[in-house]
Amino acid sequence: MTISSAGPALSQGPACPIPIDRYPTITLAHGGGGRLSDILVRELLLEAYGNDELERLGDGALLDLGPGRLAFSTDSFVVYPHFFPGGDIGSLAVHGTVNDVAMCGATPKVLSIGLILEEGFPMEDLWRVAQSIRAAADEAGVRIVTGDTKVVDRGKGDGIFINTTGIGVLDEGVDLGAHRIEAGDAILVSGPIANHGIAILSLREGLEFETPIETDSASLHDIATRLRDVLGGDLHAMRDPTRGGVASALNELARTSGRGMHIEESRLPLDPPVRGACEILGLDPLYVANEGKLIAFVAEDRADEALEVLAGHLLGRGAALIGRVTEGPAGRVTQKSTIGGSRVVEMLSGEQLPRIC
Amino acid sequence: MTISSAGPALSQGPACPIPIDRYPTITLAHGGGGRLSDILVRELLLEAYGNDELERLGDGALLDLGPGRLAFSTDSFVVYPHFFPGGDIGSLAVHGTVNDVAMCGATPKVLSIGLILEEGFPMEDLWRVAQSIRAAADEAGVRIVTGDTKVVDRGKGDGIFINTTGIGVLDEGVDLGAHRIEAGDAILVSGPIANHGIAILSLREGLEFETPIETDSASLHDIATRLRDVLGGDLHAMRDPTRGGVASALNELARTSGRGMHIEESRLPLDPPVRGACEILGLDPLYVANEGKLIAFVAEDRADEALEVLAGHLLGRGAALIGRVTEGPAGRVTQKSTIGGSRVVEMLSGEQLPRIC
Repeated sequence: MTISSAGPALSQGPACPIPIDRYPTITLAHGGGGRLSDILVRELLLEAYGNDELERLGDGALLDLGPGRLAFSTDSFVVYPHFFPGGDIGSLAVHGTVNDVAMCGATPKVLSIGLILEEGFPMEDLWRVAQSIRAAADEAGVRIVTGDTKVVDRGKGDGIFINTTGIGVLDEGVDLGAHRIEAGDAILVSGPIANHGIAILSLREGLEFETPIETDSASLHDIATRLRDVLGGDLHAMRDPTRGGVASALNELARTSGRGMHIEESRLPLDPPVRGACEILGLDPLYVANEGKLIAFVAEDRADEALEVLAGHLLGRGAALIGRVTEGPAGRVTQKSTIGGSRVVEMLSGEQLPRIC
Repeated sequence: MTISSAGPALSQGPACPIPIDRYPTITLAHGGGGRLSDILVRELLLEAYGNDELERLGDGALLDLGPGRLAFSTDSFVVYPHFFPGGDIGSLAVHGTVNDVAMCGATPKVLSIGLILEEGFPMEDLWRVAQSIRAAADEAGVRIVTGDTKVVDRGKGDGIFINTTGIGVLDEGVDLGAHRIEAGDAILVSGPIANHGIAILSLREGLEFETPIETDSASLHDIATRLRDVLGGDLHAMRDPTRGGVASALNELARTSGRGMHIEESRLPLDPPVRGACEILGLDPLYVANEGKLIAFVAEDRADEALEVLAGHLLGRGAALIGRVTEGPAGRVTQKSTIGGSRVVEMLSGEQLPRIC
C-alpha cells in the first residue's frame, strides 16, 4: 500500500525554512544532538511552533500554573497515512492530548512534543506537520513548552511518530470521573460517531465518495468547559471515545463505575456517508474511533439542558442522548437494536483498525 | 547486525504474568484499544509499575503537587540494542527524564510512560523492560501516573520506543540556567565521561573487554539536590551531557549564556577501558553520550566545595574541575590539549552514534 503523503495544502503555507534542495529528507544526523539537530530544531520546529519558553531550550520548561490540582496525560500517535481528509498526524496529536486533559475536567495549558522521525522522511512533510501542530495548539489555547526529537534508521520507523503530553489546570471543586457515575444518569454523545476511523480507513482502502469523509479530529476543551459551567456537579463524567470507539469507552466506564449501561441503536447519531462506508466495510460504528467527540454522563434531570448545551456548540452538531446508566450488572453494556432485540455490547476483541491514531 | 535481546537477568525476576505460550509476542490487537490492549495494560504493565493513580486509568492523572513552579520535560528513547551492560531502554527512559527535570533544579515527582511497540516484540522482553522501569522509578522516587501504549505493524518500528515525560517541583527561589552563567565560573563534571555511548557502541561492534564497559545510566536527582543544598545561589547551572556529549552541552550553554568556555583535556576524567575503546573506535570522548553525569557551573570561590560534594556522592566518583567560563567570545568553547596547544571544540557536526538514547 503506497499513499502519497504530500497534498495540496503544501503550496498554501509559508515555504519550508530549511532548504529542500540541500536537505530534502531527514537524516540520522538530524537526531544526533549536533549541528544538524540544532538546525532542525531552530530553523524548522521553533520556526513553526516556537515561543519564548520553548526557545530557552533548556532540559525542560519551567511553569507557573498557579495553585490547584493538575491533570496530566500522555498519548503517542502512529496514525497512517500521516495526512488525511480534515487533518494530519500533527493536529491529531494536539487534539488527542488536549481532549484527554479536557475530559478530566481541566483546562489544557501546556504541551510537550516528542518526535520520532525515520531517516528519509521528507523535510517538507515535517514542515507541514509542524505547522499543523502550531495551528492546533493555538486554536486550543495551549503552549508548546518543551520537546524532543529522535531519528531512527530507515526501515525502523514509519516516517513520523509523535508523542504529546499535556498538563491542564482544574478549577476548585471539579470532580469528574467513573466514581461519580450513577444509575439513571443520561448518556449523551456530542455528535455523529465513527468519522475519524472511517476517514482513515476509506483512504487506506481507496474508497471514493462524492465528498470525502473527513476526520472529526478537534479540540474538545471549549465544549467540555461549556458543559461543566452549565451543569456544575450534575456533570458526572466525560470520555472521548477514541480507539475502540463508543463501545470500548462505555465498557471501560461500566466496569470502573461498577454500573451497567444501556443504549439504543436508533439513537446513535451517524452521518449517512459514514453509515454507508461502515456497511461496505462491514464495520460496527460503535467500535470505530472518534477524535472530536465526547460522551457525557449527566444527572437524569439535567439531560435536556445538557443536550441543549452540546447542540448549541459548533462541535456539538448532531448531539444525542443515546442511553442510560443502569444499576447493573456491573460492567455490562447492552444495546437495543433498531429491530427491537437487545444484545450485549462487548469490548472490541481483536484488532479492527490498526494505527488509527 | 543481530543482537539477542534476551539476557541472563530474565531468570531472576518474577515470571511474565501474561502466558508466554499463548501470547509469545506483541500483536497489533494489543494496541487496538480492545480486550487485548486491556489485558496488556492490566496484567503486564500495571503489574510491573502500577499504583493507585495509574490504576484509575482515566484519560489522565489528577495531581496535587502543591503551589510553586514546576519543571516539565519530555524525551523519547530509541536506543538499540534494548538491553546493554548496566541498563536497558526502560531504566534509561526513566533516568533520562528524571535527569532533565533535576537539571532544572527541580525535584522529580511524576512520570508518564508512552510505549510504541512493534508487532512481534517478545512479551518477555516487554515484561523485563516494564520491571526495569518500575525499579528505576522507585529508586528515583517518582510515581508513574499515566501512560499510553501503541502497536505498529512489523517493520514499521524497532521492537520498542519509549517516551517519558516528567514533572518536578521547584523549591522557592531556585534559579538555575544558562542566564546565570558568569565569566570565571568553574566548570565541573561529576565523573568519568563517555561510558554510556561506549557501552552501546562496544556491544554493537562486538568489542570484547576483560570486564564489559557499562552504561553510567543513573538518576541524578539526589546528587543534584545535594549540590543545590550546599551551594545555594552559587550553583549557577547544571546540564546532563547526553547526545552529543560534553562538547555539545558546553557549546549550547556557551551560546545561550553569551560566554566562552575553556576546558583542559588533561582534566577530563575517563575510565581507562573507555579511553582505550575510544582510541580503537576513533572517537573523541568529548562527543560521546553520558546518561548519569552532570556538568555544574559554580561560582569561582565555591569550586572546591562543589567538588567535595560531588566526589562525596556515590554517583560523583571521579568528579573533576575541567575548566572555566570566560568573558567570550560568546559561544566559543576551547580546549587546551594534553600536548599544550589550544583548539576550538566545535559542536558535533555529523552523526557520530545513532540511536544512543
